[in-house]
Amino acid sequence: MAYELHYWPGIQGRGEFVRLALEAAGAPYVDVARGAESAGQGMAALQRALHDPHTAHPPFAPPFLKDGAVVVGQTAAILQYLAPTLKLVARSEQARLWTQQVQLTIADMVAEAHDTHHPVGMGLYYEDQKPEALRRAAEFCRHRIPKFLRWFESILARNPAGPRHLVGGRLSYADLSLFQLVAGLRYAFPRATESVLAGTPLLVQLHDRVAALPRVAAYLASERRLPFSEQGIFRRYPELDLV
Amino acid sequence: MAYELHYWPGIQGRGEFVRLALEAAGAPYVDVARGAESAGQGMAALQRALHDPHTAHPPFAPPFLKDGAVVVGQTAAILQYLAPTLKLVARSEQARLWTQQVQLTIADMVAEAHDTHHPVGMGLYYEDQKPEALRRAAEFCRHRIPKFLRWFESILARNPAGPRHLVGGRLSYADLSLFQLVAGLRYAFPRATESVLAGTPLLVQLHDRVAALPRVAAYLASERRLPFSEQGIFRRYPELDLV
Repeated sequence: MAYELHYWPGIQGRGEFVRLALEAAGAPYVDVARGAESAGQGMAALQRALHDPHTAHPPFAPPFLKDGAVVVGQTAAILQYLAPTLKLVARSEQARLWTQQVQLTIADMVAEAHDTHHPVGMGLYYEDQKPEALRRAAEFCRHRIPKFLRWFESILARNPAGPRHLVGGRLSYADLSLFQLVAGLRYAFPRATESVLAGTPLLVQLHDRVAALPRVAAYLASERRLPFSEQGIFRRYPELDLV
Repeated sequence: MAYELHYWPGIQGRGEFVRLALEAAGAPYVDVARGAESAGQGMAALQRALHDPHTAHPPFAPPFLKDGAVVVGQTAAILQYLAPTLKLVARSEQARLWTQQVQLTIADMVAEAHDTHHPVGMGLYYEDQKPEALRRAAEFCRHRIPKFLRWFESILARNPAGPRHLVGGRLSYADLSLFQLVAGLRYAFPRATESVLAGTPLLVQLHDRVAALPRVAAYLASERRLPFSEQGIFRRYPELDLV
């Protein structure tokens, strides 16, 4: 049976980290909110699932995944759930823990990237918090981008199995998520990001290698891949790209 | 062998979620950075462990746990690692996944609570971002506290094993973390928090039940429990407690 991915239509957002795992594994899935209302999909179906009073494990927010009777929310938990079946994580408990630890650090950076344009609150528009956004983005571009990206570079360099992957010698969901993080940062903060990436060649190679995986490349070229935009997590506001 | 918890001395911070699990289970541990330099502990030992170039799995930031040769960072990952040994999670994969999903939602709210006093950046003092903090705190108190706390209440109410615990019929690390979250919110935003807690009795009962667990009560009364303060995540700035 196909997995059901429930996420806001129209943006990559946090749903994209789940999409990339499903696409890279060639797993069948329905992107529910992007489907037709006439087929029982669309936003109404997402809202029904989100607010279903009979769900024992209701998600706090999208994205969430339905796999038959199982409902899982929180991006990192969804990936942890899917990974063994999709063969996107190693078998050993130690490797699985490390993969999740890296994923949670990616999630931390994603949240910080989002907060550059919404430092005051997600209930307001960017236009209503521009001065605050400028200050937050300065800190993010000058301190946080270097700190995070150099940490990812260092763990690639230290991987005993070589720097082609984050964990061991094979592709994991963390590699896919790190690809998306780098792509998003390049979109939103091209100058600040490239100035750091100039010193993190292993990270750039990982990004390029993931983008070239046949299933990922086919996905990125398809209509299923939504474009980056100024409604998502990674937004290109040139005034916030501070070096 | 005793676990080594590495976290900034002087504040509860994110380290407190790990401390509570270790204390509730009666597990032996050393709070490394709070120990004496003469015993090879203190901040120097934390910094050595954090920047050890030979660690294959270097943490991005404290807290991190050392268990012999194993090093684990990220609060939720540390708890996931410890929980089976400390008997703070159920055996079934489904229950473990749900426990982690709840924990990640707690972590999201902790990050948002922190950002009320640091909306612009953690590299600056609160005093240098007070106008921004006022706006962020208004959103947090009026929208986010109700949304999160009511979600916790709803999942307690839906627990098929009863509302005494978040997951199944026994104590889990998520219960301990939720206790800490409620305690922290009450410290930092007493008026905004109590106005929501008036409508979430199950959550209040969970908090009180955890606080009364013999090992937890003994810990909370000991010197090992640091007080809340204006250096931690949950800070009492009355001007930010907006209802």
